[in-house]
Amino acid sequence: MSNKDTIFSKIARGDVAAYILYEDADTMAFLDHNPVTKGHCLVIPKAQIDHLDDCDEILYAKIFATVHKVSKLLKARLGPERIALIVHGYEIPHAHVHVLPVYSHGDIKFPARPETVAPVNELENILGILKEN
Amino acid sequence: MSNKDTIFSKIARGDVAAYILYEDADTMAFLDHNPVTKGHCLVIPKAQIDHLDDCDEILYAKIFATVHKVSKLLKARLGPERIALIVHGYEIPHAHVHVLPVYSHGDIKFPARPETVAPVNELENILGILKEN
Repeated sequence: MSNKDTIFSKIARGDVAAYILYEDADTMAFLDHNPVTKGHCLVIPKAQIDHLDDCDEILYAKIFATVHKVSKLLKARLGPERIALIVHGYEIPHAHVHVLPVYSHGDIKFPARPETVAPVNELENILGILKEN
Repeated sequence: MSNKDTIFSKIARGDVAAYILYEDADTMAFLDHNPVTKGHCLVIPKAQIDHLDDCDEILYAKIFATVHKVSKLLKARLGPERIALIVHGYEIPHAHVHVLPVYSHGDIKFPARPETVAPVNELENILGILKEN
Protein backbone atom coordinates (compact mmCIF):
# COMPACT_ATOMS: atom_id res chain seq x y z
CA MET A 1 0.00 0.00 0.00
CA SER A 2 1.09 3.59 -0.37
CA ASN A 3 -0.27 7.08 0.06
CA LYS A 4 0.74 8.14 -3.44
CA ASP A 5 -2.09 9.80 -5.28
CA THR A 6 -1.49 8.95 -8.91
CA ILE A 7 -3.45 9.60 -12.08
CA PHE A 8 -4.82 6.06 -11.76
CA SER A 9 -6.21 6.55 -8.27
CA LYS A 10 -7.79 9.81 -9.48
CA ILE A 11 -9.41 7.91 -12.37
CA ALA A 12 -10.55 5.18 -9.93
CA ARG A 13 -12.21 7.81 -7.72
CA GLY A 14 -13.82 9.53 -10.69
CA ASP A 15 -11.83 12.74 -10.16
CA VAL A 16 -10.19 12.47 -13.59
CA ALA A 17 -12.12 11.44 -16.71
CA ALA A 18 -11.05 8.36 -18.65
CA TYR A 19 -12.34 6.18 -21.46
CA ILE A 20 -13.76 3.60 -19.08
CA LEU A 21 -14.61 0.29 -20.61
CA TYR A 22 -15.53 -1.73 -17.55
CA GLU A 23 -15.67 -1.37 -13.81
CA ASP A 24 -16.83 -3.32 -10.78
CA ALA A 25 -16.42 -2.85 -7.04
CA ASP A 26 -12.68 -3.56 -7.01
CA THR A 27 -11.29 -3.10 -10.52
CA MET A 28 -11.53 -0.84 -13.53
CA ALA A 29 -10.50 -1.01 -17.20
CA PHE A 30 -9.96 2.02 -19.43
CA LEU A 31 -8.25 2.92 -22.71
CA ASP A 32 -4.62 3.99 -22.52
CA HIS A 33 -4.53 7.61 -23.74
CA ASN A 34 -1.34 6.98 -25.69
CA PRO A 35 -1.94 3.47 -27.07
CA VAL A 36 0.86 1.24 -28.34
CA THR A 37 -1.76 -0.60 -30.42
CA LYS A 38 -5.39 0.18 -31.25
CA GLY A 39 -7.54 -0.69 -28.24
CA HIS A 40 -4.65 -0.77 -25.73
CA CYS A 41 -6.32 -0.93 -22.28
CA LEU A 42 -5.20 -0.75 -18.70
CA VAL A 43 -6.73 -2.81 -15.91
CA ILE A 44 -6.20 -1.52 -12.37
CA PRO A 45 -7.35 -2.27 -8.85
CA LYS A 46 -9.34 0.67 -7.50
CA ALA A 47 -7.40 0.49 -4.24
CA GLN A 48 -4.02 2.20 -4.39
CA ILE A 49 -1.40 -0.51 -4.34
CA ASP A 50 2.00 0.26 -5.77
CA HIS A 51 2.81 -3.00 -7.55
CA LEU A 52 0.75 -5.88 -8.80
CA ASP A 53 2.69 -8.44 -6.81
CA ASP A 54 1.80 -6.55 -3.61
CA CYS A 55 -1.88 -7.46 -4.15
CA ASP A 56 -3.22 -10.32 -2.04
CA GLU A 57 -4.45 -13.38 -3.87
CA ILE A 58 -8.11 -12.35 -3.75
CA LEU A 59 -7.55 -8.95 -5.34
CA TYR A 60 -5.03 -10.43 -7.79
CA ALA A 61 -7.71 -12.92 -8.91
CA LYS A 62 -10.24 -10.11 -9.35
CA ILE A 63 -7.81 -8.09 -11.46
CA PHE A 64 -7.17 -11.04 -13.79
CA ALA A 65 -10.89 -11.85 -13.99
CA THR A 66 -11.26 -8.32 -15.38
CA VAL A 67 -8.25 -8.80 -17.68
CA HIS A 68 -9.96 -11.93 -19.04
CA LYS A 69 -13.26 -10.08 -19.66
CA VAL A 70 -11.48 -7.20 -21.37
CA SER A 71 -9.36 -9.58 -23.48
CA LYS A 72 -12.48 -11.37 -24.73
CA LEU A 73 -14.15 -8.08 -25.57
CA LEU A 74 -11.13 -6.69 -27.42
CA LYS A 75 -10.75 -9.94 -29.37
CA ALA A 76 -14.43 -10.01 -30.37
CA ARG A 77 -14.81 -6.36 -31.29
CA LEU A 78 -11.45 -5.34 -32.76
CA GLY A 79 -10.40 -8.60 -34.41
CA PRO A 80 -6.71 -8.76 -33.41
CA GLU A 81 -4.64 -11.91 -33.96
CA ARG A 82 -3.76 -12.12 -30.29
CA ILE A 83 -4.13 -10.37 -26.96
CA ALA A 84 -0.79 -9.55 -25.33
CA LEU A 85 -0.44 -8.73 -21.65
CA ILE A 86 2.37 -6.78 -20.08
CA VAL A 87 3.01 -5.97 -16.45
CA HIS A 88 6.11 -3.86 -16.45
CA GLY A 89 6.03 -2.53 -12.91
CA TYR A 90 7.60 0.86 -13.49
CA GLU A 91 6.10 4.17 -14.64
CA ILE A 92 3.02 4.97 -12.49
CA PRO A 93 3.19 3.48 -8.96
CA HIS A 94 -0.33 2.06 -9.00
CA ALA A 95 -0.65 -1.60 -10.01
CA HIS A 96 -1.75 -1.98 -13.64
CA VAL A 97 -1.91 -4.60 -16.37
CA HIS A 98 -1.50 -3.54 -20.00
CA VAL A 99 -3.91 -5.42 -22.29
CA LEU A 100 -2.77 -5.00 -25.87
CA PRO A 101 -4.56 -6.20 -29.00
CA VAL A 102 -1.87 -7.46 -31.38
CA TYR A 103 -2.69 -7.25 -35.07
CA SER A 104 0.53 -8.76 -36.39
CA HIS A 105 3.54 -10.49 -34.91
CA GLY A 106 5.83 -7.45 -34.87
CA ASP A 107 3.42 -5.17 -32.96
CA ILE A 108 4.88 -6.17 -29.61
CA LYS A 109 8.47 -7.31 -29.47
CA PHE A 110 9.44 -9.90 -26.90
CA PRO A 111 12.58 -8.88 -24.94
CA ALA A 112 15.82 -10.08 -26.52
CA ARG A 113 17.03 -13.44 -25.27
CA PRO A 114 20.69 -14.29 -24.78
CA GLU A 115 22.28 -15.99 -27.78
CA THR A 116 23.10 -19.14 -25.87
CA VAL A 117 20.90 -21.08 -23.49
CA ALA A 118 21.74 -20.97 -19.81
CA PRO A 119 24.20 -23.62 -18.55
CA VAL A 120 22.51 -26.51 -16.75
CA ASN A 121 24.31 -25.80 -13.48
CA GLU A 122 23.07 -22.20 -13.48
CA LEU A 123 19.46 -23.31 -13.86
CA GLU A 124 19.91 -26.05 -11.26
CA ASN A 125 21.35 -23.51 -8.86
CA ILE A 126 18.39 -21.14 -9.32
CA LEU A 127 15.90 -24.00 -8.94
CA GLY A 128 17.66 -24.99 -5.73
CA ILE A 129 17.29 -21.47 -4.31
CA LEU A 130 13.61 -21.41 -5.26
CA LYS A 131 12.76 -24.86 -3.90
CA GLU A 132 14.76 -24.67 -0.68
CA ASN A 133 12.65 -25.18 2.45
CA MET B 1 -7.99 -26.27 -28.32
CA SER B 2 -5.60 -27.85 -30.77
CA ASN B 3 -3.96 -31.15 -31.51
CA LYS B 4 -0.50 -29.65 -31.65
CA ASP B 5 1.99 -31.50 -29.53
CA THR B 6 4.47 -28.87 -28.41
CA ILE B 7 7.45 -28.92 -26.09
CA PHE B 8 5.17 -27.51 -23.38
CA SER B 9 2.61 -30.31 -23.62
CA LYS B 10 5.50 -32.79 -23.49
CA ILE B 11 6.77 -31.11 -20.32
CA ALA B 12 3.22 -31.11 -18.88
CA ARG B 13 2.94 -34.87 -19.48
CA GLY B 14 6.38 -35.53 -18.02
CA ASP B 15 7.77 -36.75 -21.37
CA VAL B 16 10.41 -34.02 -21.45
CA ALA B 17 12.37 -32.95 -18.37
CA ALA B 18 12.18 -29.37 -17.14
CA TYR B 19 13.23 -27.32 -14.12
CA ILE B 20 9.81 -27.57 -12.50
CA LEU B 21 9.15 -25.13 -9.74
CA TYR B 22 5.51 -25.77 -9.02
CA GLU B 23 2.63 -27.87 -10.31
CA ASP B 24 -0.93 -28.68 -9.42
CA ALA B 25 -3.72 -30.55 -11.21
CA ASP B 26 -4.19 -27.93 -13.93
CA THR B 27 -1.08 -25.78 -14.13
CA MET B 28 2.69 -25.98 -14.04
CA ALA B 29 5.58 -23.53 -13.60
CA PHE B 30 9.15 -24.16 -14.75
CA LEU B 31 12.31 -22.21 -15.50
CA ASP B 32 12.75 -20.91 -19.05
CA HIS B 33 15.84 -22.68 -20.43
CA ASN B 34 17.05 -19.48 -22.10
CA PRO B 35 16.15 -16.84 -19.51
CA VAL B 36 15.86 -13.15 -20.31
CA THR B 37 16.52 -12.46 -16.62
CA LYS B 38 17.69 -14.67 -13.75
CA GLY B 39 14.74 -16.78 -12.56
CA HIS B 40 12.62 -16.25 -15.72
CA CYS B 41 9.74 -18.75 -15.39
CA LEU B 42 6.90 -19.93 -17.57
CA VAL B 43 3.45 -20.77 -16.24
CA ILE B 44 1.31 -23.00 -18.45
CA PRO B 45 -1.99 -24.84 -18.29
CA LYS B 46 -1.39 -28.59 -18.51
CA ALA B 47 -4.16 -28.89 -21.08
CA GLN B 48 -3.09 -28.00 -24.59
CA ILE B 49 -4.73 -24.71 -25.46
CA ASP B 50 -3.15 -22.57 -28.14
CA HIS B 51 -3.59 -19.11 -26.67
CA LEU B 52 -4.21 -17.79 -23.21
CA ASP B 53 -7.32 -15.91 -24.23
CA ASP B 54 -8.83 -19.20 -25.44
CA CYS B 55 -8.87 -20.47 -21.83
CA ASP B 56 -12.24 -20.35 -20.07
CA GLU B 57 -12.50 -18.15 -17.00
CA ILE B 58 -11.97 -21.01 -14.55
CA LEU B 59 -8.70 -22.19 -16.10
CA TYR B 60 -7.60 -18.59 -16.66
CA ALA B 61 -8.08 -17.95 -12.92
CA LYS B 62 -6.08 -21.08 -12.05
CA ILE B 63 -3.22 -19.99 -14.31
CA PHE B 64 -3.02 -16.57 -12.67
CA ALA B 65 -3.28 -18.07 -9.18
CA THR B 66 -0.11 -19.98 -10.09
CA VAL B 67 1.47 -16.83 -11.57
CA HIS B 68 0.79 -15.09 -8.24
CA LYS B 69 2.39 -17.92 -6.23
CA VAL B 70 5.44 -17.98 -8.50
CA SER B 71 5.76 -14.18 -8.40
CA LYS B 72 5.77 -14.19 -4.59
CA LEU B 73 8.37 -16.96 -4.53
CA LEU B 74 10.66 -15.25 -7.05
CA LYS B 75 10.37 -11.96 -5.18
CA ALA B 76 11.18 -13.55 -1.82
CA ARG B 77 14.04 -15.76 -2.95
CA LEU B 78 15.81 -13.79 -5.67
CA GLY B 79 15.25 -10.21 -4.46
CA PRO B 80 14.32 -8.48 -7.72
CA GLU B 81 12.93 -4.92 -7.72
CA ARG B 82 9.80 -6.02 -9.55
CA ILE B 83 8.10 -8.99 -11.16
CA ALA B 84 7.20 -8.37 -14.81
CA LEU B 85 4.66 -10.47 -16.68
CA ILE B 86 4.48 -10.90 -20.43
CA VAL B 87 1.97 -12.80 -22.52
CA HIS B 88 3.17 -12.40 -26.05
CA GLY B 89 1.03 -15.00 -27.79
CA TYR B 90 3.47 -16.07 -30.49
CA GLU B 91 6.31 -18.61 -30.47
CA ILE B 92 5.05 -21.93 -29.02
CA PRO B 93 1.30 -22.53 -29.60
CA HIS B 94 0.55 -23.59 -26.04
CA ALA B 95 -0.73 -20.87 -23.71
CA HIS B 96 2.02 -19.52 -21.45
CA VAL B 97 2.75 -16.58 -19.18
CA HIS B 98 6.33 -15.32 -18.83
CA VAL B 99 7.13 -14.38 -15.22
CA LEU B 100 10.30 -12.29 -15.17
CA PRO B 101 12.18 -11.03 -12.14
CA VAL B 102 13.35 -7.51 -12.96
CA TYR B 103 16.50 -6.36 -11.18
CA SER B 104 16.68 -2.87 -12.64
CA HIS B 105 14.43 -0.69 -14.77
CA GLY B 106 16.14 -1.40 -18.09
CA ASP B 107 15.92 -5.20 -17.84
CA ILE B 108 12.59 -5.31 -19.67
CA LYS B 109 11.79 -2.54 -22.09
CA PHE B 110 8.18 -1.50 -22.49
CA PRO B 111 7.14 -1.30 -26.18
CA ALA B 112 7.70 2.13 -27.75
CA ARG B 113 4.73 4.46 -27.53
CA PRO B 114 3.80 6.90 -30.27
CA GLU B 115 5.26 10.37 -29.77
CA THR B 116 1.87 12.05 -29.57
CA VAL B 117 -1.18 10.92 -27.62
CA ALA B 118 -4.14 9.58 -29.58
CA PRO B 119 -6.71 12.15 -30.73
CA VAL B 120 -9.84 12.24 -28.57
CA ASN B 121 -12.12 11.26 -31.44
CA GLU B 122 -10.02 8.16 -32.15
CA LEU B 123 -10.31 6.99 -28.53
CA GLU B 124 -14.03 7.82 -28.46
CA ASN B 125 -14.53 5.83 -31.64
CA ILE B 126 -12.76 2.76 -30.20
CA LEU B 127 -14.69 3.04 -26.92
CA GLY B 128 -17.91 3.19 -28.95
CA ILE B 129 -17.03 -0.03 -30.78
CA LEU B 130 -16.17 -1.75 -27.50
CA LYS B 131 -19.26 -0.60 -25.58
CA GLU B 132 -21.81 -1.12 -28.38
CA ASN B 133 -24.65 -3.46 -27.42
